[in-house]
Amino acid sequence: MKVIKFPERQQWVKLLERPALDTGVLRPAVAEIIGQVRSGGDQTLRQLTDKFDGVLLDELRVREEEFAEAESQISAELKVAIATAKRNIERFHSTQTEIPKPVETTDGVICWRKSIAIERVGLYVPAGTAPLFSTVLMLAAPAKLAGCREIVLCSPPDKSGKINPATLYAARLCGVTQVFKIGGAQAIAAMAFGTESVPRVFKIFGPGNQFVTEAKLQVSLTGTAIDMPAGPSEVAVFADETCVPAFVAADLLSQAEHGPDSQVLLVTTSERVIARTLAEIERQIESLPRVEIARESLVNSRAILVEDVPTATELLNEYAPEHLILAVEKADEVAEYVVNAGSVFVGNFSCEAIGDYASGTNHTLPTNGFARSFSGVSLDSFVKKITFQKVTANGIRNIGPAIETMAEAENLRAHRNAVAIRLESLNGARTESNL
Amino acid sequence: MKVIKFPERQQWVKLLERPALDTGVLRPAVAEIIGQVRSGGDQTLRQLTDKFDGVLLDELRVREEEFAEAESQISAELKVAIATAKRNIERFHSTQTEIPKPVETTDGVICWRKSIAIERVGLYVPAGTAPLFSTVLMLAAPAKLAGCREIVLCSPPDKSGKINPATLYAARLCGVTQVFKIGGAQAIAAMAFGTESVPRVFKIFGPGNQFVTEAKLQVSLTGTAIDMPAGPSEVAVFADETCVPAFVAADLLSQAEHGPDSQVLLVTTSERVIARTLAEIERQIESLPRVEIARESLVNSRAILVEDVPTATELLNEYAPEHLILAVEKADEVAEYVVNAGSVFVGNFSCEAIGDYASGTNHTLPTNGFARSFSGVSLDSFVKKITFQKVTANGIRNIGPAIETMAEAENLRAHRNAVAIRLESLNGARTESNL
Repeated sequence: MKVIKFPERQQWVKLLERPALDTGVLRPAVAEIIGQVRSGGDQTLRQLTDKFDGVLLDELRVREEEFAEAESQISAELKVAIATAKRNIERFHSTQTEIPKPVETTDGVICWRKSIAIERVGLYVPAGTAPLFSTVLMLAAPAKLAGCREIVLCSPPDKSGKINPATLYAARLCGVTQVFKIGGAQAIAAMAFGTESVPRVFKIFGPGNQFVTEAKLQVSLTGTAIDMPAGPSEVAVFADETCVPAFVAADLLSQAEHGPDSQVLLVTTSERVIARTLAEIERQIESLPRVEIARESLVNSRAILVEDVPTATELLNEYAPEHLILAVEKADEVAEYVVNAGSVFVGNFSCEAIGDYASGTNHTLPTNGFARSFSGVSLDSFVKKITFQKVTANGIRNIGPAIETMAEAENLRAHRNAVAIRLESLNGARTESNL
Repeated sequence: MKVIKFPERQQWVKLLERPALDTGVLRPAVAEIIGQVRSGGDQTLRQLTDKFDGVLLDELRVREEEFAEAESQISAELKVAIATAKRNIERFHSTQTEIPKPVETTDGVICWRKSIAIERVGLYVPAGTAPLFSTVLMLAAPAKLAGCREIVLCSPPDKSGKINPATLYAARLCGVTQVFKIGGAQAIAAMAFGTESVPRVFKIFGPGNQFVTEAKLQVSLTGTAIDMPAGPSEVAVFADETCVPAFVAADLLSQAEHGPDSQVLLVTTSERVIARTLAEIERQIESLPRVEIARESLVNSRAILVEDVPTATELLNEYAPEHLILAVEKADEVAEYVVNAGSVFVGNFSCEAIGDYASGTNHTLPTNGFARSFSGVSLDSFVKKITFQKVTANGIRNIGPAIETMAEAENLRAHRNAVAIRLESLNGARTESNL
């Protein structure tokens, strides 16, 4: 980790830069895969799975007996843990349910908004170095809670043609409708456009490598919604002398082990915290199986010493971290100053790992500074909020003249007429032309 | 309008197709403009405004005296109408305010979600054939209500270097911070990346021509959020024998006058409704100033006769219209079956024009079938919903073991350690390494 002491305000932008990713080279490769899947369907998917995952599949869809087999491979302990996480995710996301609140904006003009589930959604769950069954919980549980009718999940198979059993177990538990053994850009293309076996979905969720991310962006330009643009995971820890450096070090490492492009940031008002945390990192890192990844990620990372709490919060809001841990005195009060972050962990016992798995909050969060404008995945992400209005005869009498005036000022005469013709009918100036 | 009677289910997709827009040719032109603005800043903006809008400006920013001048040009009647619309928009959007609802998902694990305004937003308001000051109300009023600190607005100047006075008046009334005389793709680029005079914003809203739409999509790939992908406006009317054909015709025309690429759809269970509505359209269309536009738009449009109400609602959900008018018996009950739509108008007096201006609902809505997965603009569009969690010592005792199990199963040892080190400190098995 680079240590920076009391940086000047004008250095901040440079200091807080994320490692730049050039996806330009991926663009044509991903566009080609998408084009192939659109024209070739299942046959192309089988060829690409052979090419990229090294397995030639007869059937892309996971069969019933494979779910049963997966369940038999999950330990009782893991089943209990998954059930706990699922329950908490459901509890927290249930609080996001929105009840229509009709309001009479003008006498006779009633407006309301109603949340209706997106009918078909697609979830992408990576495999590779870490089988992220927790992502299944984070996406499928809210989708089911929202009422999505069809929940499709794609995940790449291993060389023996299997999907990780915990992924399958969590998918079945959370009500995923169908699971397909498809990975990479081809999975995103299959869900965006549909094939003989894969249903076309209206919105695609989930993390993935740069091919998956690029494919999501490309299909988002042609009519399929996506959860958010994704980038490498990141955490910022704000710590003062009330922190426990061993905890801070563990939290930074738990982010750093995600991937070599992960970024961790320590912001503190205490020089001693930096020294102690760096020492703790050295003590803890060697025992990690993913020590090499963690070390590489720490190269991109920074420890920044600042004057005071206001400077720290300002700097952190400028950075807009995906995860923000507040290991400081009066963490609740400091939390009030957070403007840009994906998810916030308040106090010494609130480690990011809790939110990654089981506190109940969603772990699909905006990275790369997108927390300035994006929210993490929530129940909102799986619904459309449709507005309704019901206008009575009295309502149009009250509000009609204002609309006529505005429509005329916008040179939209037919808009004006739509109101005028109704007002005339009410005034009896015009014969009711009802059938 | 083409009349189609009792189409087969397998014809629907073809029948409901929107006119295809090929934006491929725009892509390089827009990319070039964005690149120019990023490197050339204000100087480039002035050159492009000279080139595209035919006016060489000294200052891009609207000055204080221009707002005063604009206000003096607005009639008292229009001011009252705008005030009515603004009040209703505020009333309806206020119901969308979300209060944090903390929930203890596990004993000692408290989670909540808090809406925080996006700090800087940019609004684009087209000029051209219709000066859309109503769009200023629809975007700036919710932005202000949400608490956005900086609300920037761009609109193209006319040849004398002025912005439409109603646009300026509405902007000032709704609390827009700064208005710039910039149009087209160059306005989107300026707000996405910032220039000497235009602040960089984190999210861009608003309609526009194909250049503006393409520019929004392009900047959305590089870190600036956008409200939604936009397409030509559209309305579907579902009418039965209880409708008033003159009203239906007026509503169809009020959509058709928007632009030659607008699309209107009439779905009905009554052959007589089609005949009477078409006759009414002919009676009303000739008096419209924009008759040519309306006629062109009607060429893309269809009247579809269906067997019954369930078939109609199914077909309309398949189409996913931006605006849906229900001019049918028991319209309230039919409204319950709407799954895909932007905004719904219930009953004979609920014309689209009401929602376009002043019922209180937002008129920035998903077109082109995006209503399957997108919501219209609302208070949600101007905030991030940040999640928080606070875990006590008791909380981590309760939930820690489940997280350790899951982290281990995902091969993320450092995630497990972040919990383990806290549990150990509580068990006294490890000396507190506090400072």
